[in-house]
Amino acid sequence: MYTRRVTDFDLPRWRFARSDDDPAGDAAHDAYWARQAELTKPPRSLGQLEELGARLARLQGVAQPQARPAACLLFASDHPVTAHGVSAYPSAVTRAMVGNFAGGGAASSVMCRHLGIPQQVVDVGVDGGPVAGLPPSFYTRDAVAELPAGDLLSDDAMPAATARAAVDAGAAAIDRLPGDTRVVILGEMGIGNTTCAAAVAAAILGRPAADLVGPGTGVAGPALSRKIEVVAAALRRVRTSDDEPVAPARALAALGGRDIAALVGAMARAVERRALVLVDGFIASAAALVLVAHDPAAATGLVFAHRSREPGHRRILEHLGARPLLELELALGEATGALTAMPLVDLACALQAQMATFASAGVPDRAP
Amino acid sequence: MYTRRVTDFDLPRWRFARSDDDPAGDAAHDAYWARQAELTKPPRSLGQLEELGARLARLQGVAQPQARPAACLLFASDHPVTAHGVSAYPSAVTRAMVGNFAGGGAASSVMCRHLGIPQQVVDVGVDGGPVAGLPPSFYTRDAVAELPAGDLLSDDAMPAATARAAVDAGAAAIDRLPGDTRVVILGEMGIGNTTCAAAVAAAILGRPAADLVGPGTGVAGPALSRKIEVVAAALRRVRTSDDEPVAPARALAALGGRDIAALVGAMARAVERRALVLVDGFIASAAALVLVAHDPAAATGLVFAHRSREPGHRRILEHLGARPLLELELALGEATGALTAMPLVDLACALQAQMATFASAGVPDRAP
Repeated sequence: MYTRRVTDFDLPRWRFARSDDDPAGDAAHDAYWARQAELTKPPRSLGQLEELGARLARLQGVAQPQARPAACLLFASDHPVTAHGVSAYPSAVTRAMVGNFAGGGAASSVMCRHLGIPQQVVDVGVDGGPVAGLPPSFYTRDAVAELPAGDLLSDDAMPAATARAAVDAGAAAIDRLPGDTRVVILGEMGIGNTTCAAAVAAAILGRPAADLVGPGTGVAGPALSRKIEVVAAALRRVRTSDDEPVAPARALAALGGRDIAALVGAMARAVERRALVLVDGFIASAAALVLVAHDPAAATGLVFAHRSREPGHRRILEHLGARPLLELELALGEATGALTAMPLVDLACALQAQMATFASAGVPDRAP
Repeated sequence: MYTRRVTDFDLPRWRFARSDDDPAGDAAHDAYWARQAELTKPPRSLGQLEELGARLARLQGVAQPQARPAACLLFASDHPVTAHGVSAYPSAVTRAMVGNFAGGGAASSVMCRHLGIPQQVVDVGVDGGPVAGLPPSFYTRDAVAELPAGDLLSDDAMPAATARAAVDAGAAAIDRLPGDTRVVILGEMGIGNTTCAAAVAAAILGRPAADLVGPGTGVAGPALSRKIEVVAAALRRVRTSDDEPVAPARALAALGGRDIAALVGAMARAVERRALVLVDGFIASAAALVLVAHDPAAATGLVFAHRSREPGHRRILEHLGARPLLELELALGEATGALTAMPLVDLACALQAQMATFASAGVPDRAP
């Protein structure tokens, strides 16, 4: 059963701004902090809100960055690995949830509506063909959905052509957004995808399956043991020992899924466009791990929104040196963690734009 | 210099709902969770957002609680202890900041405007008399502002009559809010009040000054050492050893300040009215510590919004068994931490009210 495949897949060479060669970004960043020092508050007293604003200032090349327009994209696909009982829910939930997003009843839908953020679903492989009756402004079925996908236990999750098309589908979804989109909120819907994400992350991090596999939507006991064994077996297909690191492109194609690959492509394209990407939880972070392992320069545009309850998330975040904004024991996906963090981005921009300075407000700025 | 005073001050006996005798709250809480179980997501996958909604459901006695109307009250006063150089800013900043709140330029003002939350400032002791020219709907100078306050280093911070009037001022401010106010966001403005708050908390917790005193608005080095020594000396006035716990009413009057006492009264009255109180950072948490040490039943209505960068905040939160919603290294006060958490309350209520159920959305709710 041990086969090394996918030798012909690699990720594109994206053109990310380099943090050591970005004079416009540096100037905006300096101007941001110069204004922050004038605002009526003790220096740095708004902690991570100030740092978030500084990230945006650098990306946008302006001292007073904006949080809107923002957009939320969900990539949906099914996963053959669900045949092994790795999830608490049947695959049919993926398709049903696309309808629920369209109807506005999912957690993610409620959050988007409440926050005034348009949401779109990109179908990159939902079983059963296109979901009928949904408006094209909301739902796109990408051609990758018709390409073959494999069961990662016994086969590569994506042949090279599928992996390439899935990454491109993510990038294309970003390119359909308005050009001035400043914050991109990325999430997924795919029963079985915590299994794939755990496998991808374990491969890149050079760790055993049990370090990354968790309950996902709620498996426990024997089902959790089975999930760990499925991932362990899949990893044996692609590496000779637990601590053998696997190249990110190979990990993605051999063990991932079309939703995760589309997230990688979307993140990359958004960072190229200098939008801020609010990275959701475990699955989105596995995609971010693929991207940053492939090209560390991508990290400049990624903000990790929250630390999920999924135990393996911590390992991914630690590896990336990421300090997430929130830790609220969320474990839902659908970009709900990223959406929960969006008000912080809005506040960071409002503060920089609207606060008075010591001079304008006539407030003494130091001890007598 | 060692004097034990304030023997004649005690806090009122408030009438808080008791968690073991609240049948209407229990029923609403059960109905909340029954509906949560039907919503299209894995059980408990929204973590602390779900728990926040459950708190509100119990307080409001309804299965689908609401986050609005919300209101933000800031209590402002000066502190004679600033004569000892315990702050990075002069006392005049307190008064200037009242004007800045009125003009909409403070961090707190920007956040309130962005979140659509009305803000009021209650002056309970700003030096220099009433601030002229501010609308009565925004600014109230309470009569306690004219009562004497002391320098906690050598005298009690508030004679009993002042302490009593300050607590009443806080309660009265709550009583002026619309009767259906569901979330109360409480904060303060008062140069020197981290010194007072540290002293009050150290007294109640039975800890040395150095465990609670921190940089506040930014003192360091010799100034921080002086701040610690001032608090240590004040504590020697009211206790015979570092581990002698001091009764909360006595700690408040001997070591606190009118802003902190008003926060205690406002929190108590809001909890009596079954509003949710979003507790801000170090100073507001010191007030919450006074209240909960006086009557543990008050804790039912308090939600701790964030863990501040001020190091002593952790000790207060640990003592109260509180897990704050956010940890963003904020250290500003003015209710900015509580305001930053307000979107979580809004989201929690929107989710419970607007999410579809498995039945209504036709989503399978379990594995095959």
